[in-house]
Amino acid sequence: MHIPEIILKKRNGGTLSRPEINHFIDGYCAGDIPDYQAAALLMAIWFNHLDHDETLALTLAMRDSGEIVDLSAISGVKVDKHSTGGVGDTTTLVTGPLVAACGGKVAKMSGRGLGHTGGTLDKLEAIPGMSVSLDMERFRRIVSACGLAVMGQTADLVPADKKLYALRDVTGTVDNMALIAGSIMSKKLASGADAIVLDVKTGNGAFMPDPTAARQLAGLMVTIGNQAGRRTVALVTDMNQPLGNAVGNALEVREAIEILQGRHAGDLKTVSLALAAEMLLLGGQATNIANANQMLARALESGAALRHLARMIELQGGDPTVCRAPDRLPRAQHIIPVTADTAGFVAGFDTAALGSAARLLGAGRLTKNDTIDPAVGLWMRKRLGDRVAPGDILADMHINAPRNQADVTQRIKQAVMIAARPPTRPALIHDRITQPVDATIHRELT
Amino acid sequence: MHIPEIILKKRNGGTLSRPEINHFIDGYCAGDIPDYQAAALLMAIWFNHLDHDETLALTLAMRDSGEIVDLSAISGVKVDKHSTGGVGDTTTLVTGPLVAACGGKVAKMSGRGLGHTGGTLDKLEAIPGMSVSLDMERFRRIVSACGLAVMGQTADLVPADKKLYALRDVTGTVDNMALIAGSIMSKKLASGADAIVLDVKTGNGAFMPDPTAARQLAGLMVTIGNQAGRRTVALVTDMNQPLGNAVGNALEVREAIEILQGRHAGDLKTVSLALAAEMLLLGGQATNIANANQMLARALESGAALRHLARMIELQGGDPTVCRAPDRLPRAQHIIPVTADTAGFVAGFDTAALGSAARLLGAGRLTKNDTIDPAVGLWMRKRLGDRVAPGDILADMHINAPRNQADVTQRIKQAVMIAARPPTRPALIHDRITQPVDATIHRELT
Repeated sequence: MHIPEIILKKRNGGTLSRPEINHFIDGYCAGDIPDYQAAALLMAIWFNHLDHDETLALTLAMRDSGEIVDLSAISGVKVDKHSTGGVGDTTTLVTGPLVAACGGKVAKMSGRGLGHTGGTLDKLEAIPGMSVSLDMERFRRIVSACGLAVMGQTADLVPADKKLYALRDVTGTVDNMALIAGSIMSKKLASGADAIVLDVKTGNGAFMPDPTAARQLAGLMVTIGNQAGRRTVALVTDMNQPLGNAVGNALEVREAIEILQGRHAGDLKTVSLALAAEMLLLGGQATNIANANQMLARALESGAALRHLARMIELQGGDPTVCRAPDRLPRAQHIIPVTADTAGFVAGFDTAALGSAARLLGAGRLTKNDTIDPAVGLWMRKRLGDRVAPGDILADMHINAPRNQADVTQRIKQAVMIAARPPTRPALIHDRITQPVDATIHRELT
Repeated sequence: MHIPEIILKKRNGGTLSRPEINHFIDGYCAGDIPDYQAAALLMAIWFNHLDHDETLALTLAMRDSGEIVDLSAISGVKVDKHSTGGVGDTTTLVTGPLVAACGGKVAKMSGRGLGHTGGTLDKLEAIPGMSVSLDMERFRRIVSACGLAVMGQTADLVPADKKLYALRDVTGTVDNMALIAGSIMSKKLASGADAIVLDVKTGNGAFMPDPTAARQLAGLMVTIGNQAGRRTVALVTDMNQPLGNAVGNALEVREAIEILQGRHAGDLKTVSLALAAEMLLLGGQATNIANANQMLARALESGAALRHLARMIELQGGDPTVCRAPDRLPRAQHIIPVTADTAGFVAGFDTAALGSAARLLGAGRLTKNDTIDPAVGLWMRKRLGDRVAPGDILADMHINAPRNQADVTQRIKQAVMIAARPPTRPALIHDRITQPVDATIHRELT
């Protein structure tokens, strides 16, 4: 088996066998296959796609490229949740405690912010003292103790993905459905959970703006998960506006806490509850969605969910009193309102631009080495369809240094479209996906 | 300008600008653009093609990547000829002396055998004492003195092609029309000739088996040549059987000499005369094809062409007496006939397989470091459509060591298809191409 023949086979529209895909992944990770041949194959894959079986084989080969986490020491069904990334997308901090409070076991490996989107690890680190660098033994112990822990990926989890993603990023081969599915699912499978709930975002703040493509990606990942022996389900949810009001790390933690306190509602709460219900179903705590919803309502009203969050924070070294007094989270020195210039209705958001605006304030990284200011960000005051009068506050900027203030103000104004008529609001939850969506895989995702 | 954007532009079906193509070639040659990004771009080009203007820009950027030979010290119009490669394809050794004898100036940089095809340099080196490693000054002097010299490419001629070809060879991106045209024409343009006659081979012994694709490639190269200021014309000629009877280095030199001696005729002579006529037209020695043919007939009958070959051999350090006595060329120890098993007509040749069989005998290289045995090869005794009886000799194997003899015998038998009825013979010269053939460029060549 030789890589030039594998490249030619895919280039000419052939279907790669499992041994051929293993040869590629193993050889690339071992350094036997050079970057230039991997790049040629990735581009051939971008044009000629991988079918379902090839994508499954790719995912499994990537999963097996490094450490596979063993969570068997934790009793019960371990449930993971993964979002494809969005803006104001703080669901983990709401669903995790809710599911744990209902008896679920949430052992979650999370990531950092990528591009205009936020990352759960960055958000958790806004809590004073909080550590997300746990060793595996401590991680298992915390999940066993309070039903919930969140840590960063271990260094040796799916090295194939680290190497391939770095190559895809500089060779124009990021936006391919099979490669995206392989990247996400290999990490989920290697992370050791028994069941996986996927939150596939679609809309102008998502990496997959087109809903049809998002549904297909969801179907592909669900099928791969189930075929790899993990109960997997996906919700396709809307990302045409920030999901919560907060965009920024401490602000998002605060919003999650306020939801668990019962003081705040909205789309973030709705989506978090829907994801949590799926997690309870897969984990076997609930027998149907109605049953799950009842359990979740009780966990919320009784304060049990909030107590589970506080317990997890404490066990991960953080200050649990933020759950009673969110003001103890880092706060920015200045809150500057951004106001509307015209009257009308909020007809649309450029959601990615809002994520980028928060990043410019310091809530995210522009380069790998940037440090994040946990206090800064945006608090959105209007949502799609809201009526607006001139001078109404669209969003509050939470800033420390006044750097970029004028620029960011302008960007926010431009990212909020105001029109004479109210828009048709998109569905919040587009679809629930439990099986393949379509035999054909979309070629272009954007 | 950044290479990831250029990759994405081509991947998404865009047209690259001249500055973008220059950025790619210059950056790749300078080592600023790594192999993996070049490989991704080449694969995107394979799928989405380069249009005519892009191919022209690529060719010129490649031409300008190294030394450009200056032949202005040689008076008159310098004419070059290039074959895309075939089996038993010894036209240079016939056309060169013919054109020189008619007053043309043939300053030719040739190559070595590639794959199953032979190379002019290897053939010339079969002549005792002959050197093809000339410095530029000596090369110019020999052309001025006898109208003809053949040398290997200088080391710094089109380094972009050397680097790109090595990458294409291992990334599945060889068989793309624009990349082939760029590779050939950049070298022709850098070699300094004023006019170029292209011999584009088509058939099962050519790199471009499909005649339609061959015509399009010819049209593309002719247009590029003319737009770059060189008078350029192409013949598309048949390669569905070895062009001459000889396949192997000394054997092919012998056949060329016998043609120039007036003792031998056939398809090799016919194609060589047709190419020579085009060279005389472009060089201004002849005013039309009939006129050119008369001049060529005279050069042949008078022995002037043979004398020009002898003179060139002498000036390049070789033994010119081989032109009188070809037996002085290296001869193999054994001549082993390969005979027909059945009766019928020669219905087809696997021409590439015959080239490979000669290579197995030692007439070509299997790896870069192999040395060639100039004496060995095949002498074909039957041509397409010939009647065959059992026991008739199909070909003579000229061998030294008896290595591979049984294997090669078998390969030759399998490469000669014998059928009950005579085949329709393909045209020998399919087309004469003086302008673009088609606006659309074929995607796949094989």
